[in-house]
Amino acid sequence: MAFDPATLTFDSAGLIPAIAQDAVSGEVLMMAWMNARTVTETLETGQVTYWSRSRQAVWRKGETSGHVQRLVELRVDCDRDCLLLKVTQEGPACHTNRRSCFYTVVEGGEERVVMDPMA
Amino acid sequence: MAFDPATLTFDSAGLIPAIAQDAVSGEVLMMAWMNARTVTETLETGQVTYWSRSRQAVWRKGETSGHVQRLVELRVDCDRDCLLLKVTQEGPACHTNRRSCFYTVVEGGEERVVMDPMA
Repeated sequence: MAFDPATLTFDSAGLIPAIAQDAVSGEVLMMAWMNARTVTETLETGQVTYWSRSRQAVWRKGETSGHVQRLVELRVDCDRDCLLLKVTQEGPACHTNRRSCFYTVVEGGEERVVMDPMA
Repeated sequence: MAFDPATLTFDSAGLIPAIAQDAVSGEVLMMAWMNARTVTETLETGQVTYWSRSRQAVWRKGETSGHVQRLVELRVDCDRDCLLLKVTQEGPACHTNRRSCFYTVVEGGEERVVMDPMA
């Protein structure tokens, strides 16, 4: 069937969470938010584009850093309220220069960093 | 350092998104929500426990279906506003009886189902 972004379930701010996963390694890189416009732009351009909640602006991932995400596959979940993006990530996904934003592990009541910034 | 759930960034409803990923295959299974209490319960019991927004109640995943998620590793992201759970999933993660909730793909303007329910 034809895909219509309006069939997604957006929250009260008009946003939907989007999980970015490395299309080859399966590593989960980050989670950010999209609105209907940036879902459409991502599909049309193949360059992953989020909505920045802090800047309240379209966020073309990597536009200034060069750390772009190319869309390989976009999936929708059963409740249509979350997206999974399989991507090719250029460089680090995280603003801390790490490959993934998920770089601390909680275990035995302690939290520790398990990933170094990229060289 | 000691982990304190109060250092996480919860939304205005007191919730934080949690991504469940198969610890072995890397498949992203689902995304759901936790509050401070269910983060603590998940860590203490090793059984993944969410907060059900629809039921407004603690949701011990698999309590009725048997499709439990055992916690292998809990990660926190850079902004402390999203969790990544590496889990061992018993049976399907999705209420549609599919392994993952992300079972439709959007491509070329079309959306199609790419995963069958489990037998």
